[in-house]
Amino acid sequence: MEMDTIAAISTPMGEGAIGIVRVSGPDAFNIVNRLYQGKKPLIEVDSHTINYGHLIDPVSSDIIEEVMVSILKAPRTYTKEDMVEINCHGGLISVNKVLQLVLNEGARLAEPGEFTKRAFLNGRIDLSQAEGVMDLIRAKTDRAMNVAINQVEGKLSKRVQTLRQALLETVAHVEVNIDYPEYDAEEMTLEVLQEKASYVSSEIDRLLQTAHQGKILREGLSTVIIGRPNVGKSSLLNNLVHENKAIVTDIPGTTRDVIEEYVNVRGVPLRLLDTAGIRQTEDIVERLGVERSRKVVNDAELVLLVLNYNEELTTADEELFQLSEGRDTIIIVNKTDLPEKIDMKRIQSLAGSRPIVTTSLLKDEGVDELEEAIRHLFFAGDLETGDMSYVSNSRHIALLTQAKKTIEEALGAVEAGMPIDMVQIDITKAWELLGEVIGESVSESLIDQLFSQFCLGK
Amino acid sequence: MEMDTIAAISTPMGEGAIGIVRVSGPDAFNIVNRLYQGKKPLIEVDSHTINYGHLIDPVSSDIIEEVMVSILKAPRTYTKEDMVEINCHGGLISVNKVLQLVLNEGARLAEPGEFTKRAFLNGRIDLSQAEGVMDLIRAKTDRAMNVAINQVEGKLSKRVQTLRQALLETVAHVEVNIDYPEYDAEEMTLEVLQEKASYVSSEIDRLLQTAHQGKILREGLSTVIIGRPNVGKSSLLNNLVHENKAIVTDIPGTTRDVIEEYVNVRGVPLRLLDTAGIRQTEDIVERLGVERSRKVVNDAELVLLVLNYNEELTTADEELFQLSEGRDTIIIVNKTDLPEKIDMKRIQSLAGSRPIVTTSLLKDEGVDELEEAIRHLFFAGDLETGDMSYVSNSRHIALLTQAKKTIEEALGAVEAGMPIDMVQIDITKAWELLGEVIGESVSESLIDQLFSQFCLGK
Repeated sequence: MEMDTIAAISTPMGEGAIGIVRVSGPDAFNIVNRLYQGKKPLIEVDSHTINYGHLIDPVSSDIIEEVMVSILKAPRTYTKEDMVEINCHGGLISVNKVLQLVLNEGARLAEPGEFTKRAFLNGRIDLSQAEGVMDLIRAKTDRAMNVAINQVEGKLSKRVQTLRQALLETVAHVEVNIDYPEYDAEEMTLEVLQEKASYVSSEIDRLLQTAHQGKILREGLSTVIIGRPNVGKSSLLNNLVHENKAIVTDIPGTTRDVIEEYVNVRGVPLRLLDTAGIRQTEDIVERLGVERSRKVVNDAELVLLVLNYNEELTTADEELFQLSEGRDTIIIVNKTDLPEKIDMKRIQSLAGSRPIVTTSLLKDEGVDELEEAIRHLFFAGDLETGDMSYVSNSRHIALLTQAKKTIEEALGAVEAGMPIDMVQIDITKAWELLGEVIGESVSESLIDQLFSQFCLGK
Repeated sequence: MEMDTIAAISTPMGEGAIGIVRVSGPDAFNIVNRLYQGKKPLIEVDSHTINYGHLIDPVSSDIIEEVMVSILKAPRTYTKEDMVEINCHGGLISVNKVLQLVLNEGARLAEPGEFTKRAFLNGRIDLSQAEGVMDLIRAKTDRAMNVAINQVEGKLSKRVQTLRQALLETVAHVEVNIDYPEYDAEEMTLEVLQEKASYVSSEIDRLLQTAHQGKILREGLSTVIIGRPNVGKSSLLNNLVHENKAIVTDIPGTTRDVIEEYVNVRGVPLRLLDTAGIRQTEDIVERLGVERSRKVVNDAELVLLVLNYNEELTTADEELFQLSEGRDTIIIVNKTDLPEKIDMKRIQSLAGSRPIVTTSLLKDEGVDELEEAIRHLFFAGDLETGDMSYVSNSRHIALLTQAKKTIEEALGAVEAGMPIDMVQIDITKAWELLGEVIGESVSESLIDQLFSQFCLGK
């Protein structure tokens, strides 16, 4: 494949101690060498060395930056191509200026994800590994990061490949039966097919069992805090945020006002919705009240319903119970430092199977129980331990679900006595679907679309 | 000096393609080596090499990250100590996790600027060079970056050292005269002293002539746009921002609401004030009107006063003229696409020597003239060309000003026939003041304070 030379800033935007401009492609060494002044020309240095020097503007001969240049020769690189990483003092202007010089010398500005795309196209990693790289960058908790690094290391790929191999053997067996029926009894072939297909189906099932948790780990659990004014929503929010080191992210492509706050509650990444709403003055909260809650509850996967221990239950409270019906909800009865005025029996009956936690956020009481309740809701059971690779990516989940359905159709067809070559079509289809997980037999446009979601410089 | 081993994240916070954890100190190699799994232990590899491998959690034995580890042996490093740079996939969790592992193994979290402080304490760079590093990171325009890199490269240091040398020679001459009056005629000594001191004084003057521009380049020019509602303030703001690639910075330590926007207008970094105010709805602008303007004008170094070509001058307009009196102001008469209703003669008389530009921001007319007027106001004359090192740092400006004053006092004392040993005290004082620019004879607390303004990981 003919590749040109690409370049991009690979460190996050912002003022920092170090900024990196990454260059990859056949002309990478020449391009950077023309800008570099150091002890030795870069084209003469060994691979995997770091070289101190200066970048010089070839037009003005001015010193532009003091740099450390990493030389990485193909194929032992991220992209499997010749690569240069220019480490400079990490100012916004400085890093951009260095990138500009490299582009002026003939490199093309890389598209988002293009370095990783090359790693994929050049066969260093498969598609699920590439997707793992992005998940690793976006991970919001240690466990999410653990899932992602396992995927980068190829654990999911290996499992998928094992299953594809089993399907391939089945197809081969069927082929023999079709081509040389004299050598192979159809009955035996069907038996092998049933056995192998059932095995693959149940293995896919095991993978899919991790999907719910995997998806939460990967994407975070959209969480909303609802309750009447003055029950302690802001205190709860502040408590969660301060106890658990919130990660605040602007959602790219939107105005600065849309902010996502993630908190890591015992390994469960909560994506807190409407935090701006909660933080507004009580006056505004009063005005919007239950109406606003109705709207945000629709977007939430976890509802934290806050009630006031020191007040009688109101109609508005009961409406909130209704509102959160059918969703994962934790009932928080707050202000236990004040006398009990709420009817706890009534709450228990309204809550049904939904867990109830009593807290005094003022006195920092009950917060442990609340966090444990959140964890328990999503990570109960044995999946939590062990290093089982989670399936976390919606694309993978969809493909695995489809593959399983197709295999089960094949098994049904066998039961129904359908001709074996019809069954073979389904098995082949399942084999292809699994292939798409790791990037075999996927369309170019899908690949473009997947990598375009990466960040720049990766 | 006994130093411990320090570590910090050196890339800007945020999701990015690459994150770097930097480690410096006598135990750097051992610490990272205990976490590293690769082809060879890190303690066996050559200096200035890049080593692919994995970081392993020593407790759980889990793979934490896929990394490229740079090994840099003392003294050819940023700090002159043994250094390790761990390049990992740049997620927030991932980079923090790597840092945590390094800290668990015995490194101490570095203070802001502590790597550069060590470079200074270990004698690799002087104080003005270290300050240049920070300016380089914070630079808002190419020219500001150019000033900073010159300072990093030691151009200012060299000039200051030359001047100190001249003063030292003068002091030596005086010493000889005092100690051995028989070998040295006092008259001759006074002549040498006058000549050298005058030379140093005029050289300091030349440096200080660059200070006004240098300071603007370094810190940006605080700029405010004022005018009645509907004259085109928002259009002007948007025009400046879009034409000149604004850099938006949150001011550290404040709420997210305080945002600085820098635009680079022909090399002049404008720090736009009150942009949030201007961007609010016209309704709010109407309400606050001139009162708000009065407040923000007080903080501004450049006032852009916008008037409406299509309306008669109002009392409010005239108030704004008064408000901006005595400040660098550009009068912008906007909406020339509509019929002239304003009295341009009157404006010229109100403006006095302040430049007037007519624009139609709607039709994008007059913007070039406006930008040129801004540039001319601050970079008129010949200082703009040539690679003269600017003095840009307030600390340096203060020290140079003081040194010049002290020398002039010495010269005055000579004229007044004061005893030569009295004069010597002043010259020595000037020598010390110049020494403070490059970090000789400065107090530990000043050093601590200067470096604490650096960013983390630098």
